[in-house]
Parts: sequence; structure tokens; C-alpha cells
Amino acid sequence: MSSAGNNRNGIGFPPEGAVVVHFDEPLTLAGGKVLNGCDVAYETFGELNASKSNAVLICHALSGDSHVTSNAPPPPEPSPEGVQPEGVQSDNPGWWEQYVGPGKPIDTRKYFVVCSNVLGGCKGTTGPGSINPRTGKPWGLDFPIITIGDMVEVQRRLIDHLGIDTLLAVIGGSMGGMQALQWSVQYPDRMRGVIPVATTTSLGAQPLAFDTVGRNAILSDPAFHEGRYAEQGDNPARGLAIARMLGHITYLSEQAMHEKFGRSLRHGEHLNYDFASQFSVETYLDYQGDKFVERFDANTYLYITRAMDYFDLAENFDGDVRRALGSTKARFLVMSFTSDWLFTPEQNRRIVRALARGGRLVSYLEIPSPYGHDAFLLESPQQARALAGFLACLLRDVDQQSAPAVELASLGEDEKKRLDLERIAQLIRPGESVLDLGCGEGRFLAHLRSAGGCAQVQGVDVDVDKCVACIEHGVDVVQADLDQPLDCFGDKSFDAVVLSRTLQVVRHPPVVMAQMLRVGKRGIVTFPNFGYWRNRAQHIFRGRVPVSRNLPFSWADTPNLHHLSMKDFEDWCRSRGVRVLRRIAMDYQADERIRLLPNLRATDAIYEISRE
Amino acid sequence: MSSAGNNRNGIGFPPEGAVVVHFDEPLTLAGGKVLNGCDVAYETFGELNASKSNAVLICHALSGDSHVTSNAPPPPEPSPEGVQPEGVQSDNPGWWEQYVGPGKPIDTRKYFVVCSNVLGGCKGTTGPGSINPRTGKPWGLDFPIITIGDMVEVQRRLIDHLGIDTLLAVIGGSMGGMQALQWSVQYPDRMRGVIPVATTTSLGAQPLAFDTVGRNAILSDPAFHEGRYAEQGDNPARGLAIARMLGHITYLSEQAMHEKFGRSLRHGEHLNYDFASQFSVETYLDYQGDKFVERFDANTYLYITRAMDYFDLAENFDGDVRRALGSTKARFLVMSFTSDWLFTPEQNRRIVRALARGGRLVSYLEIPSPYGHDAFLLESPQQARALAGFLACLLRDVDQQSAPAVELASLGEDEKKRLDLERIAQLIRPGESVLDLGCGEGRFLAHLRSAGGCAQVQGVDVDVDKCVACIEHGVDVVQADLDQPLDCFGDKSFDAVVLSRTLQVVRHPPVVMAQMLRVGKRGIVTFPNFGYWRNRAQHIFRGRVPVSRNLPFSWADTPNLHHLSMKDFEDWCRSRGVRVLRRIAMDYQADERIRLLPNLRATDAIYEISRE
Repeated sequence: MSSAGNNRNGIGFPPEGAVVVHFDEPLTLAGGKVLNGCDVAYETFGELNASKSNAVLICHALSGDSHVTSNAPPPPEPSPEGVQPEGVQSDNPGWWEQYVGPGKPIDTRKYFVVCSNVLGGCKGTTGPGSINPRTGKPWGLDFPIITIGDMVEVQRRLIDHLGIDTLLAVIGGSMGGMQALQWSVQYPDRMRGVIPVATTTSLGAQPLAFDTVGRNAILSDPAFHEGRYAEQGDNPARGLAIARMLGHITYLSEQAMHEKFGRSLRHGEHLNYDFASQFSVETYLDYQGDKFVERFDANTYLYITRAMDYFDLAENFDGDVRRALGSTKARFLVMSFTSDWLFTPEQNRRIVRALARGGRLVSYLEIPSPYGHDAFLLESPQQARALAGFLACLLRDVDQQSAPAVELASLGEDEKKRLDLERIAQLIRPGESVLDLGCGEGRFLAHLRSAGGCAQVQGVDVDVDKCVACIEHGVDVVQADLDQPLDCFGDKSFDAVVLSRTLQVVRHPPVVMAQMLRVGKRGIVTFPNFGYWRNRAQHIFRGRVPVSRNLPFSWADTPNLHHLSMKDFEDWCRSRGVRVLRRIAMDYQADERIRLLPNLRATDAIYEISRE
Repeated sequence: MSSAGNNRNGIGFPPEGAVVVHFDEPLTLAGGKVLNGCDVAYETFGELNASKSNAVLICHALSGDSHVTSNAPPPPEPSPEGVQPEGVQSDNPGWWEQYVGPGKPIDTRKYFVVCSNVLGGCKGTTGPGSINPRTGKPWGLDFPIITIGDMVEVQRRLIDHLGIDTLLAVIGGSMGGMQALQWSVQYPDRMRGVIPVATTTSLGAQPLAFDTVGRNAILSDPAFHEGRYAEQGDNPARGLAIARMLGHITYLSEQAMHEKFGRSLRHGEHLNYDFASQFSVETYLDYQGDKFVERFDANTYLYITRAMDYFDLAENFDGDVRRALGSTKARFLVMSFTSDWLFTPEQNRRIVRALARGGRLVSYLEIPSPYGHDAFLLESPQQARALAGFLACLLRDVDQQSAPAVELASLGEDEKKRLDLERIAQLIRPGESVLDLGCGEGRFLAHLRSAGGCAQVQGVDVDVDKCVACIEHGVDVVQADLDQPLDCFGDKSFDAVVLSRTLQVVRHPPVVMAQMLRVGKRGIVTFPNFGYWRNRAQHIFRGRVPVSRNLPFSWADTPNLHHLSMKDFEDWCRSRGVRVLRRIAMDYQADERIRLLPNLRATDAIYEISRE
């Protein structure tokens, strides 16, 4: 949420290197008021390709601006309306410097990146600090309340102005993520991909509460002068600083804050026994507050936080987020961070649920980080790889290149897993949609797509790095723990749901099976057979829990929380009204199908099942 | 943290029914300054018994006062110094009304309850709103910074004044818990029990940060007049209200706040498109702020939050909480609430860890609640039962009554468990200290104490209600999940650690075993034997995972995550350098010890083990 690197710092001025374009057309705002035209400050990075298919719009958060990264070359098509600076390049680092630039995840050698200051902002785009043409004075609180939708409308004009019909992607974190989501509702045909990060479809009560306390601090500062502080030569610096300090607490996790500051004292070892700042965390917040006041406008803070309060992606759809997202054809990558308590993983999962239950293609990562909400601005290898991988796939789709073929032979190190997947692949018909629970790096699904003719494949895995690999393979994946409710997918939304050698490691197998049969028209389950004669022999003759080639772990260290034989499984199916459509008993040691005495002779079992 | 029920509301006045006593003796504060005497406003409830052994001191939180409950009878011994009101009884509900009173958990028919307004307060005890004798004007910011230790020193004078030598218990939640902890460090011989609730040994960086933002709002209110607002006939109501609003957010959980308010609007269905409060959560916070300003003093808010900031239980012990608590002989009951993000369960566990590792007797509950920090003020059956049970045991100890005897025959419904515990009891020698992992309701430990001559017994269980039952049985218990690190107990701190029929249900048996052998001089482990012939027979002949009388669950629904035979266990011990001191193979069906072919014939196994 911080915008580092603008030396000019000038409130009301665009960053060095930005272009300001003026739109004359009146802008009718969500609240009903009309702005007679507006200025938009923007920057572009990289070059628009001939087919204009490589444009990526990045939306900034509360305190950001158009300067997403450094080294901005002049925009490729200077427009007559635009105020064109003298080809200035800015070396100031941008607010997402490590993610945007040549050779970086959002690679400006491949993509044409656009970033503009939001409506209501204080960095060159029209906002409450701009001159009200009717009075010739700054708008102040006469500026109309704006919404995230109004911000998006202004961005749409900019995109039109740049001659771009379809964006490759709209990307944003925090309030930027709200804009990205709003784009997909407001202009669903104008992008191929959407990447909302650490965001929400609407603020919950707690973030609303923090916002109102912060605004109260500004509104009750005597230097605020009902928003006319500029004319009075004053500045509600105390109030804005308090709002910023409060915001800052919510951007960091408790853990990160405590590790960074703990109870250490700024000067010396002894307490001062007064109210002056003395704990390091106090002086840090003082500093953050003071620094912010130099570069940010109090009225803009009010308007932008109010826009976030008002944001409700589904407000025109009776609160139904799934319906709100019903018109989008874009692919989505949603990312959250584990320690983010402002826009929690659960809030991000709600987006994923609405998309997946609406039959949209969606990937979801829950990236481990101790840094709280700020994590999306910081270095994260997973975020970096996912951004690069997802954009590359979008571009490949535009160019109608197919994804690289994946041979089943390359399906991982484990021979048994490979044999298992080969058999499963034979049970899936071309054109079927497939959900793979415990999908690993997504190679099997990539194979089904490239060789098996399955266009709609979706993975689920608990491991973030495996999920990132899926995204790099162009396979949509939702990061989730199978022992948690699999509620993001709708009933019967896949032809086949695969659970390969995973049933025995989950905590509650019946729950996972029930989910599988709810989500899929049929399920394909495989597991090592506890009834295999070598297992029995060890038990009877050695008096030990079997440790065999199909169950290679000792009792104490095994990841297998449940043992089951083919008969156990079939008994269970019978008792639960689950129909066995097909049973394949295998000896994977010999790579041979077993037909006689399968429960005794098979090392592994494959079942095709459905709800009766 | 709220103090409901004082109709007079008068800032600077004691609650109706309170007595104010003046102490002449100068008070040297932790910061080095000296107060020449002070007033203390207090209330008492119930009657002090003849041996003066039933006195309970309750310490209030930030915004509380002496009015902990209603129906205060006049104090039993009106003192000459005390300003005695005309025997007024207050029917106003107190801030802990549901926990204190006749027939309530802290039963005023049994206990003599004392509660006083803290030093620095604004409800009758000397604070920044009192008159500075040197100037004849309110102290304001000339009042010296006070600490939790200073508050406790003043309470100690009150307790002396009431003629009480040893308190039965000191109890407090939040800042009241800080006082309770401080009592046990500052006057370790003056209480038999300590009950800190939802508290901490020192604030972490995040609570420090919230405090500093709140104080900033007060200090920068122009009506604050550097603390001399009373003389100016002014009141920094905006600043204090903002501080209170912010505090209020931290007292509620995100979930509770969202369930209570969500995004609902106060009036009508439509957004106002302005900055006035319109979300319900905004008007709620406005109301909380306004209400608080009527009954609380801004300077007191500054001083008391600073006292909380400065609180560090171990500050005179190089930060070593264990050493700080080294002199106490009291029994402790620590309680936290799962959704409390201000004083988290982990912060409360730190207290437990320091006590238990220092060899103190301690019970710990982590009570499930969605209500956040406020939960300690709200109805909680577990908190109520634990308070009542713990105090009853303390009183029984005073009267040197022994706890009721517990027969092994009453040890629960499960016959096998009873047989198991009978055998284990025979392995424990009188006088030994015993830790029972997975102790259930503590009956076995109560039995060991009453019939087995074991004075020091301690339980661990994951189930809060079972832990509450332990406390009611007078058995110290720490609520903990065995699959989490058992780090609250020191190395070799028990003669014997018992793990009865629990090894097979934990997720990581080797980790639990390692903890057991670290904490205990020896371990006693029992488990159902997978090698039992009926299990083998089912496996070999039926080809199924055994479901037998010693392993009665089906593969899909079993709580048993691991199977092991006696041979498996012995192999594992050998491989890990664990010595088997004794092996008892049992057929619990026949209640018979098996000596021949134990792994084949025993349904259950009992091992005594130690680190070699």
C-alpha cells in the first residue's frame, strides 16, 4: 500500500514520467452526480504489439500512483490531448518495482503495461484537490463521492484512448484487486485474464470500522477546515498521520510487527515515564505518519477509503457474487497471503468459490507469508512465478499456441504413481471435464488436456509450490486442504473427479469421498490394497503392521492415516449407497491386471464409482 | 472492558455504594516520583470469615471500577479513615455481574470479595483528575506516570487496611490479569491462588501500536489543552471517543463484529454518498465513543494505557518470566479465549509455560468463543465452572479438607480404559509426580492423589470441558493438543508420564513419544495390540482391516490414525534408543495377563520405558 520512490512527492502532481490526458466527455458517477470531464495521469512500460494483444493494466492500491516501476519509456502513441513531458524517464523505483520491468515477472519486454492514478487520487488524476471549474477553487468536500466502478470507468476511457480493445490482463492488489474484479463485472468482454491479489468483494465490518476511525481522525482535526485546508494554507497533518498509523497497523501482521519491533526502545534502555514516543514501534508509526503526510492528500484519503467502504462487487446482483461474475469469460488467478488479516484468505476464497461454482476457470494460491497484507508488495517467489506463468499462458492462448505436450512417462519419479495415472487416463473419455484432487504439479492434467482431449481440467492441491507449478503448466488449480470442506466447486460440475493414492492420507476419508461424489458425476479412486497377500503375511507371520512395497512406511512415520483393503472399500460403498461402476485390480510390481482373487493378489486398486 | 451500570457516571466520583479510604503514607512510584498519600475507592461483597481466609481480590480492566457486581452490602468493618456512605446499596449491575454474587461462580455467600478502582483511575481513587495538593488544581499531565506495580502497591495497602493477611485468590481479566500476575511477583506470599484471564506478561508491538494511536488522538485534540481541559471547562471528547472506538475494534473478533453488523446500513437501504456514519458498525462505534466520553476521563485513559504499555512482569528479572514467578507458592488458573486477538491464547500460554517449567501448579483453559477479547466479560459456562471449581479447591486446601476420594471403579464407562488405568496405577509408586497425557476428566489423577499417595499430579487434555471437569476435581490440567509441541513442561519434571490408549490417535506418534521421554523420567504407554490373533485372522481370512473388540472402528471412521503391534513398538524403541523397563501384555477380554506369545495373544500392551 505504499508508494515509494517519487522524489517530487508533490501532492496534486503526477509522478515524474507520467502523462496526463484530459477527457472532455462528462462522467456520470455511481452516486448520480456528474463530473464534466477529468484528467488522468498514467504511465506505460514496454511496447504494444501489432495485434494490441499484450496490454496489461495494473491497478494501484490506496496510497499508490501510476508509477508502478522505474525506467518508463515515453508512451508509444503520444496523444494530442495528452500533456507530454519532454520524454523524461524516471529512475525512481515504483511501488511494484520487483514485479514489473524487463525480465521481471510482468516482463515489459513481452507486455505493454499501463498504470494510471485513480479517480479521486492526488497524483495527477482528477480528485478533491483539483480545481472545481465552477468555483475556480479546489473541490474539497464538494467533490462528489466516487466508487471503485467510477475509477474503472475512467480507466476504460484511458484504455480506449490507447487504442486497446482487449486487455491481456487486469491486475491489482488490495484496492487494486477491487478494481480488477470490478473490471470483470463492468467490462467483462475486455480482458482475457484477471489477477486480483489480497483483496475482497466487499469490506467486512472490521475494515469498515478501521476506515471510519481513520476518517474521524482527519475530520476532527481543526486544521481540516471542512476540507478547505488548502485555501487556508493549512494541512490536517495530525489527523492524516493518525489515520495512516492506524492503517499501517492493519497492513502488518501481529507476528511481523512483533518480530520487527517487539518492545525495544528507540533511545537508551530505560523508560522515560512520559507520553513521548519511546518504544520503537511508536517512533516507527510516527515516522510512517509524517512521511505519508508529505506525499498524500487528506481529502483523497477520505474519498478513496469511502470508495473502498462502498465497494460491493455484487451490489447490482442482490449480493450474489457468482451472478455478478456471470458474464466474464476471463481466466482468473486469485492470490492471498496467509497472515493477511485485513483481506483474509477466506475473503479471497469467496471470490474463488463464486467463480468456480459459476463454472469459470480459476486458480487460487494461498501464499505462506508472515508479513500480513503488505506481503503482496514484498518479494514473494510464489507470487512472482505465478504472475509470470499465468500471463505467459494467457499470451499463448491469444496466439492460439497449444501448451507443450506432456508425456505420461514424465509424470514424476514414483513408478507406481505413473502406472496409476496411466490406468486412470484410460478411464477418461475425450472431451470430459476432470477434477484431480491432490493434483501435484499438474502434469497429469496437462497430459489429459494435450493427449486426452480434455479441454476443461482443474486441479486441487494443498502444496503452494505444486500449485505454482500447475499454473506454470497452464493448469488451473485451487490450493486447498482436502480435509477442509471442498465447497468451492458446485454439484456435478465435473464429469470425473480423480483421487489417486490420496484416500489413505486424508484425515476423514468419508468426507472426502462424499465431496468427490457431490462435485463429480463419477469418481475414480485408487489406493494401495491392504488385503494384498504380502501385507497379510507380514501381519500373520511377523506379527507386525505390514511394511511392504505397496505400503512402504513404518507405523510411526507413515503419512497413511488409514489402511483399507478392496473388500473394506467395497463394504463401505455398499453401506453408503455408492455404486461401483468398474473395479481394476492391479499388481504394480508386475504391471499386471489381476482378475483372480484380486483382494489377495492386487497391490493396488482402482475404482470407478458414482452415487446411485 | 466496559463498566456498565453506574447511573451516576460521574467522572472523578466513586460508584454508588463504594467507600473511599485515604492513605497518608507517601507512595514512591516505580518511576521514582512520590505521591503524598492517596484515596482508594473500593467495594466489598459478602463477609470475611473468622479466620480471614475467604477474601478474593478482583482487579478491574482499563475502563472498569470498583463496582464489580450489584447489591453491595456495607463493608463489614467501616474504618475511621473511610468516608462511609449511608449504608447505600447499589442495584446497578456491575461489570462482572454474572460471575460475582450470591450463588454465582464467585459466590459472595462463601467468599469475601474486594474490588477497588485502580490508582490513576477516575472513579474515586487518586488519579490525574484529582486535586494536586501543591497547586490546588487537578493534576492533569503533572500527575506522575504510574505502573501496574504501583496499582498493586495501593491495593496491598487496602488489603492491609481490611486486616487481610493472605488472600484466597487474586483474579482479573485483561489489565486486571496484569495486576493479578503482578501481585504474585510483588507479594508472592499473600495469596493462595491467582486467576489471570485473557491477559499477558507484557504487551507486544501490535497492542503498543494501537495504544499509541489512541493516545495520539487524545493528545492532538485541541480541546485537550495539554491535559488542563477541566480548568478550561473543556473536554477532548473527540479524541477520547476516537481512542475508544479504536479500542473497541480490538476487543471484538472480526467474526463477531461481522456477524453483528456485517455491511448493514443504519437507516434505509441506500448509501448516502457522503462521509456521515451510515454503516451500522459506524453508528455503533459512534455510540460507543460518545457513551464512553460521558463516563471516562481522557487523562486517565492516557495514564492507564501507558501503565499497560510499561507493564513487563519480568522487567526486574532480565525478561525471564519463569524467574519472575519463581517466588510464588500460589496455584494458578490461566484462561484465554480462542478468538481473542488482543491478548491471544499464545500470550496466555506463555504464562503457563513459565509457571509449569518453574515447577508451579497451573491449570490452563483455552475457551472456545467467537467474541474476541470481550469474551471474558460475557457469559461463558466454562469460565463460570472453572472459577467456581478452582476457588472451591483453594478453600478446601485452606480448611485442610482432602479432596473427595475417587474409586477406580468410577473411572468412566469404558471397561478397557478402567482395566488399563488399574494396571497403570500399580506401576506408580506413592509420592511420585505424574503427568497424564490425555487425562480426560482427571478422575485417574484424582485417584492417584487420594489413594495412590501422589501429591503432584498434572493432566493434559485437548477437550475444554474435560479440562474444566479436572479443575472441578481439583486436578491441575493444561489444555493442549498432543499434536502440538508440549513445550510447557521442563525436562524430567515428572517421575512418570502416562499415555493411556492415546498413542494410536495422535498424528505424529514419534513426536509425542519424544516429548513424553523428555518431560518424564519414565513413560508408561499403553495401546491396543494390532498383533492380537483375532486382528491377524480377520486380515488373513477376511482380507479386511481388522474390526475387533480391541480395535472396534471401521477403517473409514476410526479415530485411530496408526496401528501398531507389540513387536512394532519394540522395534521402534530399539531403533530410537528407548529402553523398555517393563512389558505387560494383557487380555482385557479375559482381564488376564499374558506371558506366552504375548504379541499373538494380548489384546492390549502396557510398556514402561525410559531414555537409555
